[in-house]
Amino acid sequence: MASVATGLVNPWAVAFLPEGRFLVTERPGRMRVIEANGQLGPALAGLPSIAAGGQGGLLDVVTDADFARNRRIFFCYSEPGAAGTSDNSTAVARATLAPDNRSLQDVKVIFSQKPKVASNLHFGCRIVQAPDGNLFLALGERYHRKDDAQKLDNHHGKIVRITADGAAPADNPFRERAGALPEIWSYGHRNAQGATLAPDGKLWMHEHGPQGGDEINLPQPGRNYGWPVITYGENYGGGKVGEGTAKAGMEQPLHYWVPSIAPSGMAFLTSDRYGAAWRGSLFVGSLKFGKLHRLEVAGGKVQREEKLLPNNNERIRDVRQGPDGFLYLVTDSPQGRLLRLAPAS
Amino acid sequence: MASVATGLVNPWAVAFLPEGRFLVTERPGRMRVIEANGQLGPALAGLPSIAAGGQGGLLDVVTDADFARNRRIFFCYSEPGAAGTSDNSTAVARATLAPDNRSLQDVKVIFSQKPKVASNLHFGCRIVQAPDGNLFLALGERYHRKDDAQKLDNHHGKIVRITADGAAPADNPFRERAGALPEIWSYGHRNAQGATLAPDGKLWMHEHGPQGGDEINLPQPGRNYGWPVITYGENYGGGKVGEGTAKAGMEQPLHYWVPSIAPSGMAFLTSDRYGAAWRGSLFVGSLKFGKLHRLEVAGGKVQREEKLLPNNNERIRDVRQGPDGFLYLVTDSPQGRLLRLAPAS
Repeated sequence: MASVATGLVNPWAVAFLPEGRFLVTERPGRMRVIEANGQLGPALAGLPSIAAGGQGGLLDVVTDADFARNRRIFFCYSEPGAAGTSDNSTAVARATLAPDNRSLQDVKVIFSQKPKVASNLHFGCRIVQAPDGNLFLALGERYHRKDDAQKLDNHHGKIVRITADGAAPADNPFRERAGALPEIWSYGHRNAQGATLAPDGKLWMHEHGPQGGDEINLPQPGRNYGWPVITYGENYGGGKVGEGTAKAGMEQPLHYWVPSIAPSGMAFLTSDRYGAAWRGSLFVGSLKFGKLHRLEVAGGKVQREEKLLPNNNERIRDVRQGPDGFLYLVTDSPQGRLLRLAPAS
Repeated sequence: MASVATGLVNPWAVAFLPEGRFLVTERPGRMRVIEANGQLGPALAGLPSIAAGGQGGLLDVVTDADFARNRRIFFCYSEPGAAGTSDNSTAVARATLAPDNRSLQDVKVIFSQKPKVASNLHFGCRIVQAPDGNLFLALGERYHRKDDAQKLDNHHGKIVRITADGAAPADNPFRERAGALPEIWSYGHRNAQGATLAPDGKLWMHEHGPQGGDEINLPQPGRNYGWPVITYGENYGGGKVGEGTAKAGMEQPLHYWVPSIAPSGMAFLTSDRYGAAWRGSLFVGSLKFGKLHRLEVAGGKVQREEKLLPNNNERIRDVRQGPDGFLYLVTDSPQGRLLRLAPAS
């Protein structure tokens, strides 16, 4: 593992810019460009007001597929609610990275999770841009509001799908249903901190279970992924959650972890940088154990799972494949790092 | 000691707002309002681009004397230089805190320390507003540029004095001297992280010495405070700095510390909150030993020095008296706190 940059405060996500640069978020509310040589750029001006605290702060960031031309990015964060309250929710903003990499311009909040609640837990969130330009957002159920995940009148515990302007696309599954929020793509999720497109263009995501029961799901439009009615986990400290592990009308995960690994970050490796055997593998970071999980998936099932980085004990917050084909990780600590996974020699 | 707020990331300064609220800077580049009950507000929108790293970041903040009417604040930070370089210097910005305490408006950089250099050390800085509305700024010598502290063609190792618009007041001492920067008030300073007005309106400041030799000075216009020609300290690891401890034309400190305490933050206590014996004492925080120093000063000398908080080992970054007469401290760590010093019971 090679350290690309150090001195990051709880970095949450890494995106890739032209010429070998990186764009990194730090949870306390800082975004900056890292030079190809690892030099940290200044904190970018132009961020919106951020309700940083607990699990909240500045979270995911992705570049637009056409970034080289439009310099557009999307990022999510915990957005404060009305002044004088502790309310907040996850929001997504669109912005243009200034040519000098010093500020965000034309910052526009395109989506705010509803409702805002007083909690600093379970914000999600990951942003995935689909080939058609629409965005998938994985949103947490805010912990205290887990029953909301089964209801369609809110954005808690949902995958939502929006256009780059924040509108609900015409073919979203609940767009015509009275009482349902039109942005919802799938529901019954808990707290997702990993999402990516598979090489075939399908959306994959994972979500934290309660105690045990972290899941990988492939969210299909309109489907119910079961939280908190079905789960392979239990309450913290023990005790059953919901009705069991399966129920008609609710989807089973492709994979689950008991005990929990606290997954964060997710990427398919499509390059040959690590040899042919790893190409096509799914990589998932673990906050809890500081391991990088490599999963071989075939026939709709995980055929093999391997834990990498046996000596690492830093919390892994994000995992992505760079345009150079290498895997990049960020580690979640007050002295966080951006790492490049070195191929076995 | 009572903890007013926790969960601050390397807080650097605390200022006081109406209705018991606080305004706090965090070095990584975050400013926020803390409610009277200790609840942390969101990260304020509107900060400029900040070269955070090493000792740099978002540093001091003060409210205007007329804040209740104009909601104006002044803050200093490490300002990035030209894109593609590591250059930076300390800058001061003026801004208006929005009525909802969520953002800074009308942000204007009124002063940038010259020249910018590639270093992440010795930025200073503290801001003191004098009764006439002018601002004193204590500026570091950027460590690698210590000889600059003796030259008047730069702002390294200087106290500068500017108007609220950043102009050099007409009565600044070097305004008419060719080749001298007109903002300079005094020179020959090293790295100041504490400055305040005494009850009689005089400017007091302290500065870090090298190894040993931290000083308290009362900067008079046009005077030379000796760094790096005279000092009571020595080079890190040993070895003489400069010519000795005294020289004609250079001022002696009011007080010095050998070994160093790494002072940060400075306030005179004018209230009776801690009994009559402490009223009028000068309080100085120590980064190195986590102690709060109480100094009794009379006849231009420190008559007595007492170290408080024997059991504290958190680095003390700022010390101020609040409008309620209590002393407030912030502690410098990734889990920093805002503390109120409790009177002895």
